[in-house]
Amino acid sequence: MTGPRYTPLATSLPADVPFVGPEVQERDLGFAFRARLGANENPFGPSPHAVAALRRAADEVWKYSEATNHDLRHALATKMEAEPDQVIVGGGIDGLLGTLVRLTVAEGDAVVTSDGAYPTFNYHVNGFGGVLHKVPYRDDLEDLPALLAKAAETNAKLVYLSNPDNPMGTWHDAATIEAALDRIPNGTLLVLDEAYVEFAPAGTAPRIDPEDPRVMRFRTFSKAYGMAGARVGYGVGARSLVKSFDKVRDHFGMTRPSQEAALAAIGDDAWLGEVQEKVAAAKDRIDDIARANGLTPLPSAANFVTVDCGADGDFARAVLRALIARGVFVRMPFRPPQDRCIRFGAGLPEELDVLAAELPAALEEARAAAPA
Amino acid sequence: MTGPRYTPLATSLPADVPFVGPEVQERDLGFAFRARLGANENPFGPSPHAVAALRRAADEVWKYSEATNHDLRHALATKMEAEPDQVIVGGGIDGLLGTLVRLTVAEGDAVVTSDGAYPTFNYHVNGFGGVLHKVPYRDDLEDLPALLAKAAETNAKLVYLSNPDNPMGTWHDAATIEAALDRIPNGTLLVLDEAYVEFAPAGTAPRIDPEDPRVMRFRTFSKAYGMAGARVGYGVGARSLVKSFDKVRDHFGMTRPSQEAALAAIGDDAWLGEVQEKVAAAKDRIDDIARANGLTPLPSAANFVTVDCGADGDFARAVLRALIARGVFVRMPFRPPQDRCIRFGAGLPEELDVLAAELPAALEEARAAAPA
Repeated sequence: MTGPRYTPLATSLPADVPFVGPEVQERDLGFAFRARLGANENPFGPSPHAVAALRRAADEVWKYSEATNHDLRHALATKMEAEPDQVIVGGGIDGLLGTLVRLTVAEGDAVVTSDGAYPTFNYHVNGFGGVLHKVPYRDDLEDLPALLAKAAETNAKLVYLSNPDNPMGTWHDAATIEAALDRIPNGTLLVLDEAYVEFAPAGTAPRIDPEDPRVMRFRTFSKAYGMAGARVGYGVGARSLVKSFDKVRDHFGMTRPSQEAALAAIGDDAWLGEVQEKVAAAKDRIDDIARANGLTPLPSAANFVTVDCGADGDFARAVLRALIARGVFVRMPFRPPQDRCIRFGAGLPEELDVLAAELPAALEEARAAAPA
Repeated sequence: MTGPRYTPLATSLPADVPFVGPEVQERDLGFAFRARLGANENPFGPSPHAVAALRRAADEVWKYSEATNHDLRHALATKMEAEPDQVIVGGGIDGLLGTLVRLTVAEGDAVVTSDGAYPTFNYHVNGFGGVLHKVPYRDDLEDLPALLAKAAETNAKLVYLSNPDNPMGTWHDAATIEAALDRIPNGTLLVLDEAYVEFAPAGTAPRIDPEDPRVMRFRTFSKAYGMAGARVGYGVGARSLVKSFDKVRDHFGMTRPSQEAALAAIGDDAWLGEVQEKVAAAKDRIDDIARANGLTPLPSAANFVTVDCGADGDFARAVLRALIARGVFVRMPFRPPQDRCIRFGAGLPEELDVLAAELPAALEEARAAAPA
């Protein structure tokens, strides 16, 4: 009896997980986190209309979802000033990035990203055998000219930019992105991840013709719309590119309740406005907590604040461990010199109370362990 | 400005959809179906405990799902007499089949299935560049000895068997499957799709050691558990095979409400028993309707009855068209000679009333168009 024979590519891949979830950490630690600030979720949650739609949809969960996401695509097209056939809906930006990589990246193909940018994009590229070329951040910002130069140099199929950036929270303004479009190398697709754009200042989202063949932009209901657990993301791009997703996607893969909830959420701009205000207030509070402890918060256009702990990665990791041991779930950028920082999500007021109470002791412990 | 460059494989793929959903057909037709009997759904729906769990989970949808599906895997392990690390949870059997094919089938690799069996499996194999070798049905049953012989002949990576079979509803008993295990060629994995097994007679599900490296079995909450729109399927197999899914799967891809609903559904055997009875009654009614119209229902171990229309595929397609035009959503097997049949799902009593009322006229219209 022999087992299955894997592909050479599958055999070569590690069984790594891009992120270890908070529940797994809680099981390992033996206690529940008192502040869940590490997963870039939005604890202010979705519109009450979306919650009501989810509850109603429970009665129709025996039906498969509508495989073309018709109603949701039409509503998103209106919102995005695109046509419905320029919009693809999928299982979060994660799922859509996986499909895009599968469509474009064969084994050995070059892909460009920033060193320390979104790990799940890299996971997909590795998973299809692509070769990642990484460009350092410049002043804690994704270095757009260097990314495009590297794409030209490596003949990259894809170049990834998240704007605003995760994990740093920094951002380029619309004019910068728009000016960069003409510098995208022929045959390279700019993957513009706008997961956090609803939190950014006006003037961050570039105007891009959906039919522009050089770019595909991605957005999500996981962040500002407060529905990470519903797995709804969308992409906007040229008709031919959007159509190509139908070649390989899991057509009935969306859940019906999530489709209904997303549709209900789009219409509730008042709730979105409230969430934006609550997130802004939470970020101000994190800034204050950081400064009160002698740390430096970075400017952020996302729903988190990345805080410079003032020393090297070893010190920041010591702070992170001390916070986690005290029930504060946080994460940090992985790559130096950005790993001098810790990322704090815009949590509920009571969660930030926990952070304010625990950060001084965590810093003290870290300083004792790894003098800054 | 040039567009993205697709992989050669992606370029070669058609933008076909395995199934056109009923909502798409309704938009094209301009009316709503009065009987939804074509998608192998279960209109008796999920356990009230699952519905309640879905509603409760709306309040936690702002959180990402638990990426390891810990609680659900543990509950399924108990149910399946396996260990939790022998169970993988994913977005329906469709999603899990896609991942399994990705892990095992490289371009040019051979895969064996029955000619006319589940199209979504074929879609995944084509989508990763595998070469399908198809074996005819024998007496409307998947021909297990021929499938295994073809797997040996082609050095197949995978051989697919759905038991009970979709679209025919026929089945092998447990002893037949168990006896076949030792004839699986070295290096071939038997993909045992048991989506419908909860509807089958006792003695249909084979006893298979989860650690047996020659088989992976798949089950779902979409059919007997009435939650097709929640996208929860699971696979049971050897630890090393299950672990390999972590190399490429979308770790946070499950929705949180679906995880909670599935967990609640497992515990409600009383509801499952009621559904089994209702489905059995609906199948008896379909048998009666078929016979009253001079047609021959095939024995079925699934939640549908495949009915022999008594002539060739052209005639059955004419009946199908006439039924759809009369508001009865049904589907049929795609390949001759099985395409002489139409498949009727175990619908609600009022849906079967519609079928009973419309079938005579549909047959009359088909006989006028294509005399049998």
